[in-house]
Amino acid sequence: MITLDYQNLFKVNALHGLDQKIFDVPASKIQDLLKKIESRGQGFYKILDDSETLLKINDYANTVKGKYKHMVVLGIGGSTLGITTLQKSLTHEFKNNIYILDNIDPDYMREVEDVIDLKETLFIVISKSGGTVETLSQYFYFRKKIEALNLEQKNHFVFVTDPAKGLLREIANTEGVKSFKIPENVGGRFSVLTPVGMLPAKLIGLQINDLIEGAKLARDNFYNPDASVNIAWQLAKIQFEMYQKGKFLNIMMPYSSKLKTFTEWYAQLLAESIGKDGIGITPVSAHGVTDQHSQNQLYHDGPNDKLIIFIELENFKTKLEIPNLYPEHAAVDYLRDTTFNELMCLEKLGTETSLTERDRPNITIKLPNLTEKSLGEFFFILESSIAFLGEMFKVNAYDQPGVELSKQLTKQYYERKA
Amino acid sequence: MITLDYQNLFKVNALHGLDQKIFDVPASKIQDLLKKIESRGQGFYKILDDSETLLKINDYANTVKGKYKHMVVLGIGGSTLGITTLQKSLTHEFKNNIYILDNIDPDYMREVEDVIDLKETLFIVISKSGGTVETLSQYFYFRKKIEALNLEQKNHFVFVTDPAKGLLREIANTEGVKSFKIPENVGGRFSVLTPVGMLPAKLIGLQINDLIEGAKLARDNFYNPDASVNIAWQLAKIQFEMYQKGKFLNIMMPYSSKLKTFTEWYAQLLAESIGKDGIGITPVSAHGVTDQHSQNQLYHDGPNDKLIIFIELENFKTKLEIPNLYPEHAAVDYLRDTTFNELMCLEKLGTETSLTERDRPNITIKLPNLTEKSLGEFFFILESSIAFLGEMFKVNAYDQPGVELSKQLTKQYYERKA
Repeated sequence: MITLDYQNLFKVNALHGLDQKIFDVPASKIQDLLKKIESRGQGFYKILDDSETLLKINDYANTVKGKYKHMVVLGIGGSTLGITTLQKSLTHEFKNNIYILDNIDPDYMREVEDVIDLKETLFIVISKSGGTVETLSQYFYFRKKIEALNLEQKNHFVFVTDPAKGLLREIANTEGVKSFKIPENVGGRFSVLTPVGMLPAKLIGLQINDLIEGAKLARDNFYNPDASVNIAWQLAKIQFEMYQKGKFLNIMMPYSSKLKTFTEWYAQLLAESIGKDGIGITPVSAHGVTDQHSQNQLYHDGPNDKLIIFIELENFKTKLEIPNLYPEHAAVDYLRDTTFNELMCLEKLGTETSLTERDRPNITIKLPNLTEKSLGEFFFILESSIAFLGEMFKVNAYDQPGVELSKQLTKQYYERKA
Repeated sequence: MITLDYQNLFKVNALHGLDQKIFDVPASKIQDLLKKIESRGQGFYKILDDSETLLKINDYANTVKGKYKHMVVLGIGGSTLGITTLQKSLTHEFKNNIYILDNIDPDYMREVEDVIDLKETLFIVISKSGGTVETLSQYFYFRKKIEALNLEQKNHFVFVTDPAKGLLREIANTEGVKSFKIPENVGGRFSVLTPVGMLPAKLIGLQINDLIEGAKLARDNFYNPDASVNIAWQLAKIQFEMYQKGKFLNIMMPYSSKLKTFTEWYAQLLAESIGKDGIGITPVSAHGVTDQHSQNQLYHDGPNDKLIIFIELENFKTKLEIPNLYPEHAAVDYLRDTTFNELMCLEKLGTETSLTERDRPNITIKLPNLTEKSLGEFFFILESSIAFLGEMFKVNAYDQPGVELSKQLTKQYYERKA
């Protein structure tokens, strides 16, 4: 199980740290927050019980098994951040057959085209509204290419979209393209455990039942009104209290190369959910040990406006020994009988300790390992902690009114041009 | 040539924007700053004249040409951020033969091992001090593997390190390993235009002479004390003045997938150079159009504590048309006779305009194209703007005292263990 270590917050001075008593909160308070969350009518915690959809995904995966050499996901934002995280965390960096086109950059699109064989490619088109202009443009582009090869659309596309509305849904209905539904009350940034993340995850060979099982574990914890055990609530409480002390930035820093993109998934969740009405926590991505040689100077000696959230991976899959070939040399004489695993661990300990000594508040989320179950648990802990955080800040964590104007302006530029 | 567009700063209200008169600065003031920079004794702008080293790199590249199937860079922080940026910006995402091991994550290291053939691999070991524990550990690891195959170290390793000091230099001298020198007065984060970046760049087929040529263009501009034309000074001035108005965060947001990692190179430069003595600007990476669907909500409606630095690519290599297959449908009816290039451009315009309307300060750096020359120019503009910024903030932009404690602590944990 995932654990949260916040002891360092009690060690930094009172101006920048916290007192243990912030966690002395009666169960009734947490129950109140849970009721408020419930009243929002959101589905992100209910979808875990939708075993029927998982079966449909499994069935579909069986029918397409071995039929395609390449898979390409077309989507943007919440439609792709989850699957990107799953791909990077759980599959081999250099041995996987999925390409995720989360941008409309023509140079990058061309590079993907260079390496896929359209005849053997399945496109997974993901858009909550079914009307996302970037995703539709990409879909049009590749559909035209597929049809130019006299191939049938329905053999090369599958959609994940709204159950009833939008252009993709209309096309699925009228042109017989296989499709999966995103529940109406689940927003993009909360959708990784719906077909948005689960369909491509299954198609690249991940154990989606384990992802859901891990998430359910976290959900049990989320429902628990005991302040001493509810990790999602604890994390939200820490972020909220730290914000009151001027920690407007949250640095998320996994000590794992495989979790580097996890921080981008979380960045959307935190930024888009809480960043409104003039308030908001700005997420910053870093990763250990690499960024000890980059951002670390700023985190130690710059403005004390950050809460650092370390992610520690307790068990790597691989254990690699460091053979010290120059044990007498001052630069490395302390490296004895050690592994890259231990070096990573002790460097993280050095960094968190020196930050704490300089009164820089930091906490650590500990992941037991990189498996579907742990990732499912982790996704859900963070989604549910954002739900708590929204109620603490008294904002609606589920909308994004601020992005409408720029979309309208782009549309206007086109209309003026016409 | 690269240009800087800061007109939006004059459009946002005075509380969050700037007045045009901040640029009314006499040449003597800029000359003073240039003298202060000169007095720091740093070499980052002098190295551009070192044509001898470029010749040596070209010669070496000729001798190893075609000999290796794979290349692996071992390094961390300033030793790898430059080459990573060059690789991602200028080479094909899926067709290049270089692996950059900028972390000691054992799972990721194993994945690289899985796909390289040691017998046909050249390791480029980069460490300024020659004593970076992570890089030495990786070097030991792969050297042992190479020797276990009865292969000779000197056929599989090349070093880039200090001219005189450190373990790597000692090994180069005593064991005959080919090596290149990093000038003593050039720090890691300013080293991309030394052999640190240039050697691996040449080995993956980039035109390093063009990189230097572009940087020289930028250097001419850096030396120009005319406030109306010196881009590096203008950028620093904007960052400095914005900081006085509470813009403690700089979001760097390229509208280009190929420039996504450029922001990580810049993040180190900004964070490590200026983040000291309790001050510092926190760099945040974003990328367009993707992050319009992620961070954009926060940037529009969250705390107004950010300066957004857009990077616009004026010409992509590829032009891709968007075939509008459903021109009557409301979701896309405005897309007519358009390209992904234009959509990207108009989305960026929509975003900067809506941010400006909400009094969110933003500027745009315009890159004419993605070529060695432009990248060289861009690297140098930012390095030299950081030099100006250091003098404006009255900090030494070239040291990093804050990271020493964590290194010592890690060493102590090992010593206690022994």
